[in-house]
Amino acid sequence: MSIPQKTVSPIKIILSESEMPRQWYNLAADFRSPMLPPLGPDGKPVTPEMMSAIFPMNLIEQEMSSDRWIDIPEEVLSILYKWRPSPLHRAVALERLLDTPARIYYKNESVSPAGSHKPNTAIAQAYYNKVAGIKKLTTETGAGQWGSALSFACSLMGLECKVYMVKVSFEQKPFRKMLMQTWGGSCVASPSSTTNAGRAVLAKDPNCPGSLAIAISEAVEEAVSDPTGKTKYALGSVLNHVMLHQTIIGQETKKQLALAGEKKADVVIACAGGGSNLAGLAFPFCKDKIEGAQIDILAVEPSSCPTLTRGPFAYDIGDMSGMTPLLPMYTLGHEFIPDTIHAGGLRYHGMAPLVSKAVADGLIEPRSIGQTECFEAAIKFARSEGIVPAPESSHAVAMAMREAVKAKEEGKEKVIVFGLSGHGMLDLVGYDKFLSGNLQDHEPSPEQLARSLDCIRNFPKP
Amino acid sequence: MSIPQKTVSPIKIILSESEMPRQWYNLAADFRSPMLPPLGPDGKPVTPEMMSAIFPMNLIEQEMSSDRWIDIPEEVLSILYKWRPSPLHRAVALERLLDTPARIYYKNESVSPAGSHKPNTAIAQAYYNKVAGIKKLTTETGAGQWGSALSFACSLMGLECKVYMVKVSFEQKPFRKMLMQTWGGSCVASPSSTTNAGRAVLAKDPNCPGSLAIAISEAVEEAVSDPTGKTKYALGSVLNHVMLHQTIIGQETKKQLALAGEKKADVVIACAGGGSNLAGLAFPFCKDKIEGAQIDILAVEPSSCPTLTRGPFAYDIGDMSGMTPLLPMYTLGHEFIPDTIHAGGLRYHGMAPLVSKAVADGLIEPRSIGQTECFEAAIKFARSEGIVPAPESSHAVAMAMREAVKAKEEGKEKVIVFGLSGHGMLDLVGYDKFLSGNLQDHEPSPEQLARSLDCIRNFPKP
Repeated sequence: MSIPQKTVSPIKIILSESEMPRQWYNLAADFRSPMLPPLGPDGKPVTPEMMSAIFPMNLIEQEMSSDRWIDIPEEVLSILYKWRPSPLHRAVALERLLDTPARIYYKNESVSPAGSHKPNTAIAQAYYNKVAGIKKLTTETGAGQWGSALSFACSLMGLECKVYMVKVSFEQKPFRKMLMQTWGGSCVASPSSTTNAGRAVLAKDPNCPGSLAIAISEAVEEAVSDPTGKTKYALGSVLNHVMLHQTIIGQETKKQLALAGEKKADVVIACAGGGSNLAGLAFPFCKDKIEGAQIDILAVEPSSCPTLTRGPFAYDIGDMSGMTPLLPMYTLGHEFIPDTIHAGGLRYHGMAPLVSKAVADGLIEPRSIGQTECFEAAIKFARSEGIVPAPESSHAVAMAMREAVKAKEEGKEKVIVFGLSGHGMLDLVGYDKFLSGNLQDHEPSPEQLARSLDCIRNFPKP
Repeated sequence: MSIPQKTVSPIKIILSESEMPRQWYNLAADFRSPMLPPLGPDGKPVTPEMMSAIFPMNLIEQEMSSDRWIDIPEEVLSILYKWRPSPLHRAVALERLLDTPARIYYKNESVSPAGSHKPNTAIAQAYYNKVAGIKKLTTETGAGQWGSALSFACSLMGLECKVYMVKVSFEQKPFRKMLMQTWGGSCVASPSSTTNAGRAVLAKDPNCPGSLAIAISEAVEEAVSDPTGKTKYALGSVLNHVMLHQTIIGQETKKQLALAGEKKADVVIACAGGGSNLAGLAFPFCKDKIEGAQIDILAVEPSSCPTLTRGPFAYDIGDMSGMTPLLPMYTLGHEFIPDTIHAGGLRYHGMAPLVSKAVADGLIEPRSIGQTECFEAAIKFARSEGIVPAPESSHAVAMAMREAVKAKEEGKEKVIVFGLSGHGMLDLVGYDKFLSGNLQDHEPSPEQLARSLDCIRNFPKP
């Protein structure tokens, strides 16, 4: 029997334990102008003391730090090492499919036990809370990615975890709830009857389907009302310390590109919802860009929730009811309700202040894509590279394919790097709908966007 | 802020590309007595020509080979390298939980894009069929693990894939069907109206829920009735060449144990349904045992389908209707219908002839466990080690925990290695049922086992 012989392609670059990043990178240290502060209801900058009701002081220090590098505790490293450093893959089959001169790489965060990049910060947050003597964390979750990642982290750190899951998702998407419970997390539908916030909503509307804003209110209320002070709240995106914890992604990627023999990346691409996945991959490349490197860094958002591409840079609250400070960020207004696309993780009205600042400063360029193009790209990716991307990650896949086609048109040997933030094993219904022709694209009208910005008219201006 | 410092534990052992096994290991070459041949309906050994209607000749050569080592083609290696070598983890958190002197390691096959060990042979089979000029593969699937793995492999190799999925699973478990379709596989409910076999069943019973036997008949019929000869059939377990393709698992594990500083494994554990996962991990250790090493190699099956622990070694057919040859194996009789446990991949009446021979020769010891103990163990594992095991893999987890407790009782520093054949992301309903107290154990009665063996009474005896 004759078998055609072919050289094994350099399709995967792995790092050893000793090559794991030992510090998080803080982009705030390298901006040319300082970050604007978050503001309280009185319009004055929020103090650490004000935040200490819901976060432990060690995380508040990180939230407010302007240090460029922050050491990663050994115990956090030892748990991250269960699945990290994550692989960087060369997408040779996709390159062949697109017949592009570009070399496409993707950083594969789907290898974590929860299936996404979220555990990178969940483990760190659970650790710092444990060190601070906290026994229980509360949080909210929409489709369930963050709630399951925090349940995972709490189980490994020996903390209790309580997740308020938006009721409509709780009922329609039972699998992530089951996943949280398997990890010992307690998951309840929000609005619930166990908090004042939840009861108030149910009194007005017993059939309320819930929202992230209500779920945040319930989770924060449970944290602040624990008389022992041993319960705190955890957030999966938006805040500075969350961005920080994700920067191991980009640091690893840079080492891996060097091992692959690439002098630099030409295009870096990640999807952006609250901003943590984008920040994780992109911020270490932003540092190079600040130091003079020529890199196109693209934030990809759904055209149904075009925060960076169509929203103003303004002060807005992070939730819908004002439990959070006013944050300086791109926003569609906290009353904006995006279409129910399958990339649930990208349906956020605002954007992390650090990411917003990077966009305002021209370090990161925003782009938007409709979900049908994303699913089409994701299926091409799955059938060539093998991994089924999460609907969120499919936005980066689609943009990478656009850039690879552009490189072909320009005849340029570009190095394109994108973030595969998670796998789609629990999102197959979206694929099924796309394959059976039942998915559409929806963009908000200019009138809808103008209307939803009404709610921030009286807030302070940046 | 003070952070407790701790040394990073050696919790994961990875191999580089250059350390990937380059050959498959064939245990048949090292048995002290020859394998019994498969027999045709006439009681005479099956010839390669008889098999060539459904398999390409290059795979039939492997099926019948007695060579000890068989080269892995470079193109197969280059695709396996997308996720291989798979990590070997040290289960330090589980050891701590069990307070055991044993060192527990697990080989993590859940990192493949399909989430299990199945792609190891799916890629190889798709490759050999492609080399033989085949354009399309047909197969059957129960819960969908094998069907999705073959769809994945065919999409990467550029082959068509047609999966006959047992109708009751097709309707109750839509997610693996969606996964197959995402990879471009065509998945139909069996019995279907597109084959003679399917139509005959439907004529008798239009509401027939289907069975693996019927699905095999349909898949084989489609393969043999393609007038161009470009369609073949693929099987995900039981056959010799499938066992062969999985032996990279155990070969990698042995290298990784050496890197971890372990001189030898004392106990090797894997779950066994058709036998391919067990063979993959255990056969390279069987070789050491034949050469004199002291190793307990344990095959773990569900107590509801106790093929190895309660069945005789006999000639039986591999399906329910006699489309396959008579295979020399442990069997419960092809009419045995096991309880509908969540470990669907372990519900098989027979066992791979190579595994059966290894058990008959005393190289491998069989054990059985009920599913509630398995789910309880899996949850302890998920909450300490982080990964949610597939229900099949939970049988190995439970047995590893039994052995770790035994090591503690004996005060022995044993090295326990088990196979984590896949993750449970698409099996969360089983976890939910267990956590809500809705799972029971079922063992067949001696009378039921005796009755189900009636059907093999007139077959030739080994």
